[in-house]
Amino acid sequence: MKGLIHAREEGFAGLTYGELESTSIGENEVRVQLKTAGLNHRDLFVLKRHKPTDPPLVLGSDGAGVVNEVGSLVSHVQVGDEVIINPGLGWKANSEAPPEGFEIVGLPDHGTFAEQILIPAENAVAKPSFLSWEEAGVLSLAGLTAYRALFTRGKVKSGMNVLIPGIGSGVATFLLQFAKAAGADVYVTSRSEEKRAAALSLGAVHALDSNLENWEEELNEKMDLVIECVGAATFQKSLNQLRKGGTIVTFGASAGDEIKLNLRDFFYGQLNMLGSTMGSAEEFELMLQFIEQHKIKPVLDEIYPLEQFEKAFTRLENGEQLGKIGFRIE
Amino acid sequence: MKGLIHAREEGFAGLTYGELESTSIGENEVRVQLKTAGLNHRDLFVLKRHKPTDPPLVLGSDGAGVVNEVGSLVSHVQVGDEVIINPGLGWKANSEAPPEGFEIVGLPDHGTFAEQILIPAENAVAKPSFLSWEEAGVLSLAGLTAYRALFTRGKVKSGMNVLIPGIGSGVATFLLQFAKAAGADVYVTSRSEEKRAAALSLGAVHALDSNLENWEEELNEKMDLVIECVGAATFQKSLNQLRKGGTIVTFGASAGDEIKLNLRDFFYGQLNMLGSTMGSAEEFELMLQFIEQHKIKPVLDEIYPLEQFEKAFTRLENGEQLGKIGFRIE
Repeated sequence: MKGLIHAREEGFAGLTYGELESTSIGENEVRVQLKTAGLNHRDLFVLKRHKPTDPPLVLGSDGAGVVNEVGSLVSHVQVGDEVIINPGLGWKANSEAPPEGFEIVGLPDHGTFAEQILIPAENAVAKPSFLSWEEAGVLSLAGLTAYRALFTRGKVKSGMNVLIPGIGSGVATFLLQFAKAAGADVYVTSRSEEKRAAALSLGAVHALDSNLENWEEELNEKMDLVIECVGAATFQKSLNQLRKGGTIVTFGASAGDEIKLNLRDFFYGQLNMLGSTMGSAEEFELMLQFIEQHKIKPVLDEIYPLEQFEKAFTRLENGEQLGKIGFRIE
Repeated sequence: MKGLIHAREEGFAGLTYGELESTSIGENEVRVQLKTAGLNHRDLFVLKRHKPTDPPLVLGSDGAGVVNEVGSLVSHVQVGDEVIINPGLGWKANSEAPPEGFEIVGLPDHGTFAEQILIPAENAVAKPSFLSWEEAGVLSLAGLTAYRALFTRGKVKSGMNVLIPGIGSGVATFLLQFAKAAGADVYVTSRSEEKRAAALSLGAVHALDSNLENWEEELNEKMDLVIECVGAATFQKSLNQLRKGGTIVTFGASAGDEIKLNLRDFFYGQLNMLGSTMGSAEEFELMLQFIEQHKIKPVLDEIYPLEQFEKAFTRLENGEQLGKIGFRIE
């Protein structure tokens, strides 16, 4: 079978689309014939972490397809089932943090950028029928991350003012859709006029132009909740928008991970800063129920054939996308 | 009447012990003849914030004494009542943050370092009978701050591992006593052998020598909760001791308020950082119930006549104390 493999060279130069040997199925595993997959910032990060001396690796955390083989002990999944992949391995019930040994599909185990994947049967979840294959293929990682950050950690409630700096990424567009559906007033920022317009059409009450040095002057209200996935470049401004007693949830640092922070401002403001990453299988189920109830579909940016991975990775690295970049696998 | 007044010159040089004019009582106020008062880091901070051009100010937030006059609309406090002062002005029910207009006794209104003080009747609270006048006089600000930080914010539970870096200050000794009484395993650090020994006798399970660069190597377990009141000098080490999903509560920055923080470590750790300051009248009542139930008495360091304020301020500024420094006012 074919897949997108990282081997032999550092970073992007080590990526090739080529032939892989299939491995035999474990007794609690299923094999999924993938139809679509989704690209995440994590894949860029994996490109940096996976060393040329490590065994070759298939990248990718998101995917959807049809089960074509089941292990001998698997009972609740059958050949022919249409599934999406929950990329969290070994985190079942919701908890403050993942258990020891938690991993994500696509490092160290092979990922979804291939014709087939072997995964634990519990990670093959029924595909929501109202989603297309493209939509289903790009949902998992970003949808789960957004769900935990916004609901479990941020405890979003109807009527809250919620700020999402840097709208554009897949996870940021899910945050906007989820927060809007939860009844919050959602504020976003972007340097792109096109993305600001798209955010307004998705239901943001205000889309601020972060090219302006003092974009926050256009905010008439303080925020109850900021969901921050940009990092160092925006963090201080994000903190400054919180009301006293407000909460910032952080789960991303694509624009730098070292921040400075003034403790006195922080504790006088009675602020809360909460770290979040990924989520449990329980939260994955809750996320699926939420999008089904509110008929939320992932915002699709571009969908490429897997062979055109270079275009996709470049588009993500340059931050040109609005919503999710995906792959068709045929 | 006599009092410790700040006026005319910056900082410590502007402090004099001298005569003050009494002002007339408001209809919702009481006048308390003070017997004792307590010194806090806040008083050092007020010395920096109160300008020579501002009206002269009596410092001090903590005090205890006997009511000797009540305003015309006051019903629940009587002349002769033995009271301690809740120094929080205008924060009644517990809430995420104090309401607009919240102030603390001792800036901008006159404080407790005087023979008498006028305060709102609701801030004159019955003195716990098991405390001496010295103990009652030093309880309020540090006890309330510790209570909110540890219970309301830190949600301490029996069996938790709790770290208190920099044992010694009044608020840190309350934290140790409160956390121990709540059933936690309490770890402390100090550079002073004498303070470490005192902490062990107050019930700490381990007192680490923070003169050692890698004092944390002696910790065999990760912490569920760190209550951090030192600031920049210890903050990173404090964060590093948390288990995944653990919580750090910050309410002090006597050793610097600018910190650096790695966002990626923070969100991968699913950490929580919560700011806290002071507390509400509701928390003040809960704190009094808690110390009554567990018969907790403030750890007294030195008690000086108010005229010897220089000795007291110098001792606090040098961090020589273990527990609370107080004043006798006769």
